[in-house]
Amino acid sequence: MIGASHGPAYLEQAQGRVTPVGTAFARDWADLAGIGGGGAGGYRRFAWTPADLALRAWFREQAARRDMACEQDRNGNLWAWWGTPGAGAVVTGSHLDSVPGGGAFDGPLGVVSAFHAVDVLRERGVVPARPIAVVDFADEEGARFGVACVGSRLLTGVLAPQDARALRDGDGVSLAEAMRAAGADPAAIGRDERALERIGVFVELHVEQGRGLAGLDAPIGVATAIWPHGRWRCTFHGEGDHAGTTRLADRHDPMLPFASAVLAARETAARLGALATFGKVRVEPGGTNAIPSRVDAWLDGRAPDEATVARMVEEISDAARDAGRQHGVRVEVAVESSTPLVEFGDGLRDRISAALGGVPALPTGAGHDAGILSAEVPAAMLFVRNPTGVSHSPAEHAETADCVTGIFALAAVLEDLACR
Amino acid sequence: MIGASHGPAYLEQAQGRVTPVGTAFARDWADLAGIGGGGAGGYRRFAWTPADLALRAWFREQAARRDMACEQDRNGNLWAWWGTPGAGAVVTGSHLDSVPGGGAFDGPLGVVSAFHAVDVLRERGVVPARPIAVVDFADEEGARFGVACVGSRLLTGVLAPQDARALRDGDGVSLAEAMRAAGADPAAIGRDERALERIGVFVELHVEQGRGLAGLDAPIGVATAIWPHGRWRCTFHGEGDHAGTTRLADRHDPMLPFASAVLAARETAARLGALATFGKVRVEPGGTNAIPSRVDAWLDGRAPDEATVARMVEEISDAARDAGRQHGVRVEVAVESSTPLVEFGDGLRDRISAALGGVPALPTGAGHDAGILSAEVPAAMLFVRNPTGVSHSPAEHAETADCVTGIFALAAVLEDLACR
Repeated sequence: MIGASHGPAYLEQAQGRVTPVGTAFARDWADLAGIGGGGAGGYRRFAWTPADLALRAWFREQAARRDMACEQDRNGNLWAWWGTPGAGAVVTGSHLDSVPGGGAFDGPLGVVSAFHAVDVLRERGVVPARPIAVVDFADEEGARFGVACVGSRLLTGVLAPQDARALRDGDGVSLAEAMRAAGADPAAIGRDERALERIGVFVELHVEQGRGLAGLDAPIGVATAIWPHGRWRCTFHGEGDHAGTTRLADRHDPMLPFASAVLAARETAARLGALATFGKVRVEPGGTNAIPSRVDAWLDGRAPDEATVARMVEEISDAARDAGRQHGVRVEVAVESSTPLVEFGDGLRDRISAALGGVPALPTGAGHDAGILSAEVPAAMLFVRNPTGVSHSPAEHAETADCVTGIFALAAVLEDLACR
Repeated sequence: MIGASHGPAYLEQAQGRVTPVGTAFARDWADLAGIGGGGAGGYRRFAWTPADLALRAWFREQAARRDMACEQDRNGNLWAWWGTPGAGAVVTGSHLDSVPGGGAFDGPLGVVSAFHAVDVLRERGVVPARPIAVVDFADEEGARFGVACVGSRLLTGVLAPQDARALRDGDGVSLAEAMRAAGADPAAIGRDERALERIGVFVELHVEQGRGLAGLDAPIGVATAIWPHGRWRCTFHGEGDHAGTTRLADRHDPMLPFASAVLAARETAARLGALATFGKVRVEPGGTNAIPSRVDAWLDGRAPDEATVARMVEEISDAARDAGRQHGVRVEVAVESSTPLVEFGDGLRDRISAALGGVPALPTGAGHDAGILSAEVPAAMLFVRNPTGVSHSPAEHAETADCVTGIFALAAVLEDLACR
């Protein structure tokens, strides 16, 4: 019986169990913390690198400890099964890779919480009516090859195998070469009907990447939608020359229209109620005393609706081209990835919220594998409070008490979906 | 006898000898062309790298072919001697290293021309009254460790040994470590009285890095002065965060004040009749979907006088800091190197010009080892016409006929200085 003075069951359970579950969580968390960087410089866990392979080994070990059968699918996603793998499974998990200088929580919190939610259900003697699977999606951040959610995009066929194989990292290594070097077969990638059929429903737990829950004083929330978003590569073709001897009037310096594009992006995003960021820049040749011959810069754009994203990118491109013309610099803007608006289904969201006794519902500007999968299967997301809202940074954080609450909330959701 | 219808002797000689000297020049040039890159991407001949060691081996071989004694001094500069090394030598040469994406001529033309000028004099039976030396100065471009003219700055004591040893490249390797790895002793670097005493006069031949001679229709010129110039490192300290979830109002994005600084640099330089360039940028963490935590950008500034350089850098710094304040981004500006105005002595310049029958005299915005040495010994520079003016780029060029003219001009200058 839950009295008026008490909260929902998962909160009650979490409050009584912070210490043992928190200790177990902290142990697995510490195992993971040593892989792929960390500390003041943040994590650098890029797809198919030695760090990624160490993360995959950690995942297999977690599965083995729990007697969960583990397999890597054709697209490099890892699956750990409670029960016989089969159709209609309740799937949870997230990803283990990171952006450069990334935090510890974005991705790993969803995977670690998934394993511990299984532990909570097993300890409670729950016997699921449907199989439950924990998944680690490959290359969610797209930090190495420039396209995000490669594992789930390949699984669902949104990303064509030949396009994926041809993606190259900053050193010119193709995704195909990187997979081969890591012992995976790039010829096998592509839409995977068998893997998709087995997903009855997908619930991804993720650290919130804003201060929505902190502002509402709530440890857990559920996602309503993911803003449409994309990446555009802006190339400014100038003319390399000597910085000390070339008259200003004779220059074709690509850094100048790039700078104008950066300022135009902020102004345009502010005016349209959207987000625009230049976070990655490559300058050639990159010498102090050389006028650059070329600048490549990547624009990340997001907005509540697709028309606004398109309009914003067009206006920023126009501003870049106008500035380019002033300096005799040719400007190219090419889309690298574009993800439409994702609205998570009301039905699943309401059911999850009800299972948790009612939690706040909020949208996010961040892309997730759950958004990619939502086009194919019922999908939902749980968010765990982030006190500062900071993400994609070593300062990214969630309190252990909130992480434990997240584990109990996820366990309640899995039980509801797998047993009823 | 030189008739009125003829030009100066060195031109006559060059015109009659383009083919044999041009062929010999082309042969040595081709040997050098294969080292350290080349092609559309340009050269990448950084100090103390395998490419630099290959260039040094090429220099030793050129000296050996000519029975010139070769030695590396305490600061890594290479010397090849015609005659017994000793005080009052006539020294010529330049450097073999390059900027990233560099051209073939900036530096190497002076070294190759020096060897061939020796050949011309010997073939003519000239017996110098003073020793003649060909020099290859170490790390002139400063492309790897950020400080230009390291070899000549150490030789003259302008750069303190402990400061030099602590310089680090982009991978964190110190100059001391790099020298040691290349078999040189970093403990031995510093002002070298013995080497300085031996330099009676220094003449550096260099491809022009502007279109001054092309505009005057002259193959050869002599330098009047080197503009004061320097490098400043501008650091923009922001706050890393997620590009998709952080509200514009909550951001401390260092890319924005950097962009403002780029535009301010151009505007300020134009207003003051100076030059300002941002050619090198480092963005951390450098993820497409991450707001940068920090941007480091290097400002190259030059002007006809030192007061203008100082005023320009101050105004650009102020603009960067103002923009930083708007975004909660702290901006630091630190000088990395600063070279005062160099005015080459009238006496030596007039003598050289007379030996060449009168050639145009022009200033340059580019730093050179001759500028560093001019504080200690009589120094001068010869420029060879550059038809496009392009430099620090694979498009940098000089016609072979002009290069041969340069060899004969340099031979005439060496003969005048070493025999009279």
